Amino acid sequence: MEKKNINAAIIIIGNEILSGRTQDTNTGTLAIWLNSIGVKVSEVRVIPDEEKIIIDNVNTLRKNYDYIFTSGGIGPTHDDITASSISKAFKKKYQIHKEAFKILESYYKPGEFNEGRQKMVWMPENASLILNPTSGAPGFYVENVFCLPGVPSILKSMIGSLKDKIVGGKPILSHTISLRTVESEIASSLSKIQENNKDIEIGSYPFFQAGKLGVSIVLRSEDQSKINNCNSQILDFVKEKNIEIVDR
Amino acid sequence: MEKKNINAAIIIIGNEILSGRTQDTNTGTLAIWLNSIGVKVSEVRVIPDEEKIIIDNVNTLRKNYDYIFTSGGIGPTHDDITASSISKAFKKKYQIHKEAFKILESYYKPGEFNEGRQKMVWMPENASLILNPTSGAPGFYVENVFCLPGVPSILKSMIGSLKDKIVGGKPILSHTISLRTVESEIASSLSKIQENNKDIEIGSYPFFQAGKLGVSIVLRSEDQSKINNCNSQILDFVKEKNIEIVDR
Repeated sequence: MEKKNINAAIIIIGNEILSGRTQDTNTGTLAIWLNSIGVKVSEVRVIPDEEKIIIDNVNTLRKNYDYIFTSGGIGPTHDDITASSISKAFKKKYQIHKEAFKILESYYKPGEFNEGRQKMVWMPENASLILNPTSGAPGFYVENVFCLPGVPSILKSMIGSLKDKIVGGKPILSHTISLRTVESEIASSLSKIQENNKDIEIGSYPFFQAGKLGVSIVLRSEDQSKINNCNSQILDFVKEKNIEIVDR
Repeated sequence: MEKKNINAAIIIIGNEILSGRTQDTNTGTLAIWLNSIGVKVSEVRVIPDEEKIIIDNVNTLRKNYDYIFTSGGIGPTHDDITASSISKAFKKKYQIHKEAFKILESYYKPGEFNEGRQKMVWMPENASLILNPTSGAPGFYVENVFCLPGVPSILKSMIGSLKDKIVGGKPILSHTISLRTVESEIASSLSKIQENNKDIEIGSYPFFQAGKLGVSIVLRSEDQSKINNCNSQILDFVKEKNIEIVDR
């Protein structure tokens, strides 16, 4: 049975990314994992900690993609408004999640499960939990919207808890050939190859490493034999033009 | 005279960011510079190298923001489709830009200004140039949409050429106080301070440094005296709760 294409969008919620104070790395973490299980990330949006904007973006994107992942805004402070905004987006009550309450009650020492921490168990009604092996407080999901924290190490540690919840398609395979050349030298050859291999995504990325210029050509497809075939067409012109291969 | 708020959006164009192969750093570079000249980045979108998607996003966002910056897709290869897509977004002809042609003709050695490189002088009709001190090929802008390359070092070097083209508002000032605490300990105090200082953006960001947990509180406003006032309210509760200040 042919698996269909599965598409996802990522919403990074946080003023600290928009101000340039913090470099987002969660997009890369999620994208690499999702690719490996056959989910293609088709769009990423970085938006501020503002309720109306969160609601509008979640409601627009969740209709267009199979999965939505949000990152950020589920901690204990006043600027953590993802859970309440998602409740409004789905028109669900924002309330204490009993299972999450139990998890945090036993995670913290007696007396440490204070008001700030209790905020982290407020979620949309009937949300399902995404367990957090690093710092206790779970993420959650409602329908196809999965809400994860912004701290990169915690987000990374929660991917294991997501694995049985996401159904992917065919894994997206990729192959990279790195050449000692510049893009303009290979542009017309690459154009022809793309023309003849329309269902392969061929990307061309200049790099500068150890004082030398080069270009990485990245082939992406769900079909290994198509990648192999396209790869040998590239090696043909590389040989013809006498271009040094740095890595393949 | 009171300057008004100026808002921008950034569109990162590139499959390599969506696949997780490449980490975007251009958002941070642009955001930090734009903040310094009083332009707030309100939204970032990462989109694939697909014409219709580029056109739709540019046409949606350019109506909602004072400035749009795009990054990526203006090189010589087949996957560089930003200039032709922007032409279509503005319903302008896609043609050779005479001034850009002259710049690259004299930049390259005789015979080196080949077909691939000539692609980089195709732009929307009447586009204005953004000079490139690093690698010759200019960026361009049409109305409020500024198109820059994806290579971070080249983009960075072109900010100088943008300076006289962007009119900012009041610079957005920020102040950071880093505390040896966890978010849940200060959440309710911070909430009250945010409540009493509605026109200041107060962000709370946990960190883990040299084996120790901490929280950075970031205050952002156009008004230094409001930041100072809010800062002293924070220092009051920090003293009261006997929290160690790591940095301020």
